[in-house]
Amino acid sequence: MRTAKTSAMATVAALIIGNEILSGKFDDENGPFLIRRLRELGVDLKRLVVLPDEAPAIIEEVRSCTDRYTYVITTGGVGPTHDDVTLPAIAEAFGRGLERHAELGRRLAEKLGTRFNEAAWRMAELPAGAALWWEESMYWPVVVVENVLIFPGVPMLMSRSFDAVSSRIAGSPLSARRFTTLKSEPEVADALTEASQRWSTVLIGSYPRYEAKPHTVIITMESRDLDALNECEAWLAPRCG
Amino acid sequence: MRTAKTSAMATVAALIIGNEILSGKFDDENGPFLIRRLRELGVDLKRLVVLPDEAPAIIEEVRSCTDRYTYVITTGGVGPTHDDVTLPAIAEAFGRGLERHAELGRRLAEKLGTRFNEAAWRMAELPAGAALWWEESMYWPVVVVENVLIFPGVPMLMSRSFDAVSSRIAGSPLSARRFTTLKSEPEVADALTEASQRWSTVLIGSYPRYEAKPHTVIITMESRDLDALNECEAWLAPRCG
Repeated sequence: MRTAKTSAMATVAALIIGNEILSGKFDDENGPFLIRRLRELGVDLKRLVVLPDEAPAIIEEVRSCTDRYTYVITTGGVGPTHDDVTLPAIAEAFGRGLERHAELGRRLAEKLGTRFNEAAWRMAELPAGAALWWEESMYWPVVVVENVLIFPGVPMLMSRSFDAVSSRIAGSPLSARRFTTLKSEPEVADALTEASQRWSTVLIGSYPRYEAKPHTVIITMESRDLDALNECEAWLAPRCG
Repeated sequence: MRTAKTSAMATVAALIIGNEILSGKFDDENGPFLIRRLRELGVDLKRLVVLPDEAPAIIEEVRSCTDRYTYVITTGGVGPTHDDVTLPAIAEAFGRGLERHAELGRRLAEKLGTRFNEAAWRMAELPAGAALWWEESMYWPVVVVENVLIFPGVPMLMSRSFDAVSSRIAGSPLSARRFTTLKSEPEVADALTEASQRWSTVLIGSYPRYEAKPHTVIITMESRDLDALNECEAWLAPRCG
């Protein structure tokens, strides 16, 4: 029995927002985390963009992605300082204003105590009509505007929030196979092309490795259709041997 | 003496092309490498996009970036197999055809010997009018189309090619400062805003750290204007103490 590659499969575009990543001040931890977790969930990450803390770039990217992907996940830029522009930018992307969110303000006030001030209020100024996903284990809620899921940028807060809500993001895990060949890519190219045409539900990749001699090529196959994956591997492996 | 933040400063958009990165089969090594090297060169990386091996996504991104940034750097998708679509996609982005590049074909034939076949020729089919940057130490040339610099995706080849041509990419290194405060972001937000207005050539960032108690905030300042950087630090540090 074959399961067709369904067009209703959940897809994601991830927007990693922060000058500090592009300038190399801090390594990006949120991008690799999302890649790993989305793979485990069986959700297809189709695009990952690292953007500066600049509203025009964020507005353009959100507008471009919102209709193309099931979810747009953003990280970063939701704090109280001058370089935190994600929330107003996303509001503008959808033509909405910002509104003080009473519940979020109350929780912030509880948390910050005497340090709760006007600047802290900025963190509770959300795009009008935003929903909050807030589970017990989270330090900071996910702010949801249309299909945009807005996460904090601090990696510890981001990963904790993501894991708390990940069950809401439905996926369908992939099965994967790989083997290594001593042939070169030009020698196996025709077989790879034919296999990718015969088994259109199997995504085939080839990756040359030059670190050690003899040079090798890693051939990978992935699919949600286990029968097709097995057939494809049985056909392809001997032709690359 | 102040040096104005010049609008002629070199900027880069990096396009990391490869299903294997988005699906988590392989960690991205080229993105972090470019972030590090561009910082050392003093070139501003303004955008980093990880794209699948799909021509429409590459075409759209190249068209969008070519007029906005000094250089568009791509990695990946230049091999001989079915999933290598970068060269035809970039040709299409500029409305050019593909042409077999005689010199590249000759070099490939020398390198591959009896394994040089029709599939291998695909690697030498370049956008019409492309230039090659090819230094002694490189295993694979940089293919240059307008302001797009096309690198291979295999990290060892990519880094070797980049280092061989990096002197052609002119930059102006930044100076950086940082300090840590025990205050919270809301408490220092007003001072950060004022400093970023007073010293517009200084890029100021703030990054909360929650890994250990007491929680801290790292304040960073960067500029190509050393006088402004020193003044800004001297003004800001005591106000965050």
